[in-house]
Amino acid sequence: MTDTLAQALTATAAKVEAALDAFLPKGDGLEADLHAAMRYACLGGGKRMRPFLVMETARLFSVDEACALRVACAIEFVHCYSLVHDDLPAMDDDDLRRGRPTVHKAFDEATAILAGDALLTKAFEVLAHPLTHADPLVRSDLVLALALASGADGMVGGQQIDLAAEGESLDIGQITRLQRLKTGALIAFAAQSGAILGKAPAHVRHTLVAFAHDLGLAFQMADDLIDVEGSSVEVGKATGKDQARGKATFVSILGPERARAQAALLAEQAAKHLDLFDAKADNLRALARWTVARKS
Amino acid sequence: MTDTLAQALTATAAKVEAALDAFLPKGDGLEADLHAAMRYACLGGGKRMRPFLVMETARLFSVDEACALRVACAIEFVHCYSLVHDDLPAMDDDDLRRGRPTVHKAFDEATAILAGDALLTKAFEVLAHPLTHADPLVRSDLVLALALASGADGMVGGQQIDLAAEGESLDIGQITRLQRLKTGALIAFAAQSGAILGKAPAHVRHTLVAFAHDLGLAFQMADDLIDVEGSSVEVGKATGKDQARGKATFVSILGPERARAQAALLAEQAAKHLDLFDAKADNLRALARWTVARKS
Repeated sequence: MTDTLAQALTATAAKVEAALDAFLPKGDGLEADLHAAMRYACLGGGKRMRPFLVMETARLFSVDEACALRVACAIEFVHCYSLVHDDLPAMDDDDLRRGRPTVHKAFDEATAILAGDALLTKAFEVLAHPLTHADPLVRSDLVLALALASGADGMVGGQQIDLAAEGESLDIGQITRLQRLKTGALIAFAAQSGAILGKAPAHVRHTLVAFAHDLGLAFQMADDLIDVEGSSVEVGKATGKDQARGKATFVSILGPERARAQAALLAEQAAKHLDLFDAKADNLRALARWTVARKS
Repeated sequence: MTDTLAQALTATAAKVEAALDAFLPKGDGLEADLHAAMRYACLGGGKRMRPFLVMETARLFSVDEACALRVACAIEFVHCYSLVHDDLPAMDDDDLRRGRPTVHKAFDEATAILAGDALLTKAFEVLAHPLTHADPLVRSDLVLALALASGADGMVGGQQIDLAAEGESLDIGQITRLQRLKTGALIAFAAQSGAILGKAPAHVRHTLVAFAHDLGLAFQMADDLIDVEGSSVEVGKATGKDQARGKATFVSILGPERARAQAALLAEQAAKHLDLFDAKADNLRALARWTVARKS
């Protein structure tokens, strides 16, 4: 990773961490565990890649940073809720996440389900609040786009396909669709949210979506490679799980060499979409290249 | 129940059923089970009391019926998602709902969790869509109010308290707060949504919230009485469960006689709040009285 990108990621992650902390409830009543589980699920880790996409695309349109930070938090709430629910015993049954016990292990299953529900709901609360943007049309566009990206035709649909696909032999088209829904849709929302906040013209918004689709696919291929090649200590969660479950992945279909080449190509293609922008987009270009070079 | 109220409830329920059906996806791909579970959770039953509150309060302000119906569906999506998640083994562990197997019994736990997630997300998608209201400020106000009513400071918080309270001896103040969050907040949103759609002045909106709070509390007391006194065949779900779990309820604290008297008082008080309105509010007045007279 370039020093500039590393510094930018660290700086944004710190701002996001502080903002998430301020948003999350901290009650001491009978619902104290719910609040604690929401905080546990969101705070203290994660690359904050989606928030970074929001902040960096918002910067392209000189959007007020405080507004962009709210959208970044909303997306991170959705991302964190999806991890909490995906880790549940009835789903992927994971005990470890970012090197720590998963939420249902640290608390219990009921609290994990409810904490996920509350985080998802919080995302929409944050977006719809007048502080997110003075123009209510922007707020309601953000809500609509996030809902479409994260519901049955987006992230949740992708997770269902992922579960249904265990033991099935998906082809490359099906795997691509699965990932486009499961991880791609939310990444695409993150990348276009800066354009929504900045009221950019439609073609600019679409360019950022195209960037995000290539980036998301490259990111997933890199993730699949890490699952096959990384150790769990290095990665901070269990590895080799896809193979153990007979899950088709980009790597199982293409083989590691072709998957690596394809990911590199997609990362370059993602960066190419940004030709529309000047040096302000350099962090996004560097992010695309880092996505496929990372080890965890 | 008066004939007029019965006819109005039936007519609204039919419109809501058709609208829910039109909103819900019907795919045949790998995510077919998700779609089927969402439909199973929402269609074919339920009193549709919350949608009725939306439609009737919207009528007070001559709101376009198609717009109100969309908000009614959004609230019903949230209500249905909450039932799906509450019924899960890790939560209330119920096998029966409205006389049918619960979603995780008819499908599986993973699909039930995801169907709930997708329904919650769908609610915000529907509210934020331009067809719900031409004014984006109204749409974003609806989203914000629904998120506040259904998240950690509303319905989800109430469910967490409910789980934490098993075996605890709550006092009447704690039980009242629990119910205000768990069921009252969403009912209050339903009752004020007509005023939001109709851009009614703040004091009118607050009057409807006051109506809803009394109605919601009366409704819950009646529910507690039905749980103690009804048979499961009559009610369509397991009864006597609160007692079996040592859960404090209005009935366990007040005793059935005082709970019944208190519920009747609240129902009258709810109706009294509607003095602001003319005969257009008669269905709402009748609803308040029926709430405490019903047997299921």
